Amino acid sequence: MNDKLEIIKRKAVQIFSEEDLDRKINSDKKLTIKLGADPSRPDLHIGHSVVLRVLKQFQDMGHEVVFVVGDFTGMIGDPSGKNKTRPALTFEQTRKSAETYLEQATKILDKNKTRIAFNSEWLSKMNFADVIKLTSKYTVARIMERDDFKNRFENNLPLSMHELLYPLMQGHDSVELKADIEIGGTDQTFNLLVGRELQKDYGQESQVVMTFPLLVGLDGKEKMSKSLDNYIGLTDSPFEKFEKSMKIPDVVLRQYFELATDLSTDEIDKIMSGDIREAHMLFAKELLKMYDDVNEFESIKERYINIAKGEIPDNVEEVKIDKKEINICDLLVEIGFASSKSEAKRMILGNGVKVDGEVITDINKVITIAEGKVVQFGKNRFKKIF
Amino acid sequence: MNDKLEIIKRKAVQIFSEEDLDRKINSDKKLTIKLGADPSRPDLHIGHSVVLRVLKQFQDMGHEVVFVVGDFTGMIGDPSGKNKTRPALTFEQTRKSAETYLEQATKILDKNKTRIAFNSEWLSKMNFADVIKLTSKYTVARIMERDDFKNRFENNLPLSMHELLYPLMQGHDSVELKADIEIGGTDQTFNLLVGRELQKDYGQESQVVMTFPLLVGLDGKEKMSKSLDNYIGLTDSPFEKFEKSMKIPDVVLRQYFELATDLSTDEIDKIMSGDIREAHMLFAKELLKMYDDVNEFESIKERYINIAKGEIPDNVEEVKIDKKEINICDLLVEIGFASSKSEAKRMILGNGVKVDGEVITDINKVITIAEGKVVQFGKNRFKKIF
Repeated sequence: MNDKLEIIKRKAVQIFSEEDLDRKINSDKKLTIKLGADPSRPDLHIGHSVVLRVLKQFQDMGHEVVFVVGDFTGMIGDPSGKNKTRPALTFEQTRKSAETYLEQATKILDKNKTRIAFNSEWLSKMNFADVIKLTSKYTVARIMERDDFKNRFENNLPLSMHELLYPLMQGHDSVELKADIEIGGTDQTFNLLVGRELQKDYGQESQVVMTFPLLVGLDGKEKMSKSLDNYIGLTDSPFEKFEKSMKIPDVVLRQYFELATDLSTDEIDKIMSGDIREAHMLFAKELLKMYDDVNEFESIKERYINIAKGEIPDNVEEVKIDKKEINICDLLVEIGFASSKSEAKRMILGNGVKVDGEVITDINKVITIAEGKVVQFGKNRFKKIF
Repeated sequence: MNDKLEIIKRKAVQIFSEEDLDRKINSDKKLTIKLGADPSRPDLHIGHSVVLRVLKQFQDMGHEVVFVVGDFTGMIGDPSGKNKTRPALTFEQTRKSAETYLEQATKILDKNKTRIAFNSEWLSKMNFADVIKLTSKYTVARIMERDDFKNRFENNLPLSMHELLYPLMQGHDSVELKADIEIGGTDQTFNLLVGRELQKDYGQESQVVMTFPLLVGLDGKEKMSKSLDNYIGLTDSPFEKFEKSMKIPDVVLRQYFELATDLSTDEIDKIMSGDIREAHMLFAKELLKMYDDVNEFESIKERYINIAKGEIPDNVEEVKIDKKEINICDLLVEIGFASSKSEAKRMILGNGVKVDGEVITDINKVITIAEGKVVQFGKNRFKKIF
């Protein structure tokens, strides 16, 4: 038990406060551990796994994890219309994305010790007077300590008043849930501390706040995120996981091992002192071990190496086409490479499509169906048709 | 009609914008003129009369006046608990104070062209999502331009987040009422402009904002207000109005004439070039003319002069006491000088009570009732008993 706590503490960047944490852990109470989930981004990647694996440790110690889905703000979207990446979601969308979220998260977590809460449950019931009460608990000076608020305010960049309310909502979630501990990435430190402070203002014991490092993306620069397409998704196929692992910049590979796997420091040292290409493959192997089937590792590795050499891999999926001849665009849709004819056209015009090794440039090209004919898109997508 | 507009314009400190004002006035539309009323301070004084008399001019031009009673915020009070002069009011209190307000205001205004609106009607129906929509219309930079917010923020003085919401509420009132013009004291400029901006954001034509000077109080320093006890109330008795007029500092008397009476500049010049004590009395005469009965002026003046000389005035009210002897405290209650025996005691112990010119110091003193005996409290309250 203390070992688990030590692992958690070692990974944490900051703890507010370690004394409170020790006291709560030793209290024999079943603790409520809160993690916020953004319903507009339901796809989890190994960046998320850093905190998820901390949560798992807490579950192993007997505590309960609550994912708070921020569906209330999700449904409002961005009323200022400035943030176009935040369209308003419907009730159904938020429920569906919460389901997707849970499904992925339980690749790591114990489903029986995990529950989902939607913050619209309490926030949608609050009226203007309740909002005034909530906002009266917080000073402008304290909210403006948040770096991005401060920078935008001081540099005359747009900052709408409603944005100041979001950290308070998130903090109010902790009050509603009577959270004992809230964890998150270091970029969430400010928001998590708001919850800690608000609980005190509402007469509760303050939650312990623990922050963990953010995993850098495959570009080696930005935080891993789906929108930057620099991520390894938990639901990526084993082959995708392998392929993406090979793309991790060498200089950050150690960090990936430290944050996203369970290997000990000794094991990581040993791997990193060997061949770097081999080290990438071993990282992929760890991912398959955790999220998929490690038995697939050798065949995936072989396939990857073949493709890298420019060869058509073994075991390419076969698709039956019930025609003698077919337009290339229709064919791409039929075998699932394109979702529409217009997408298929773009793929061809980008010179990404080959049939039996020959690049197709004519979008009206008619393909004769023949046993074993190989259709290829990009470097690593293959289908055999018959 | 243009004369009335000219009088209004001459008194205004700022107009946003004069062009809009002229256009609206010339549109033949019956305009809605908004004035905010604070339900926690229902006692009107001649400081309020400055804008009330402007409103009367608008009414004479055919427009309608709406008093918006800020009962919503009034009922919330100050949730931060910092402002002890702002206790939460009940629904009944806000209604009663609105009634009191209207009763006093119609000493100046035409009751048939005046209506009262309570902002709880719409603000209490707003939920958190509505608040977010409202706050999304306004940037932090713009709200922080308000002087007192800016100063408190920059000087690290307490400023709670809910305070930033108040100007938006007041502005939202203009949206709800579709106000054409809002008027107020110069101290309200910022808040009135919020309404002007919000209306535009909600797709309405922006209200014209007009601000008027604040009348300085009898102390010659602070803005006139009941809480500072430096005011001449619209419902003060004619004698109180006279007495307080005599206390106006000489240096601000011209300003009182300009802002609180209808006299022309020529008339004011003439009065101010004469005897200053006489000028104070003429100011009192104007007040009686507007709010009471000017016929009382001469007798009040005479009484005032007698008291100033230390004499007992003529025409002191007589009260019949159905006893031969009475305790002094009971007597003070009986004749209405004190509302309780304990108050009577305090009056005596403060050496403020005289009987036939003799100061009473013994709270157990027994007074023999006799025709024409004079009881006096302070300098100017007298009753004859028999």
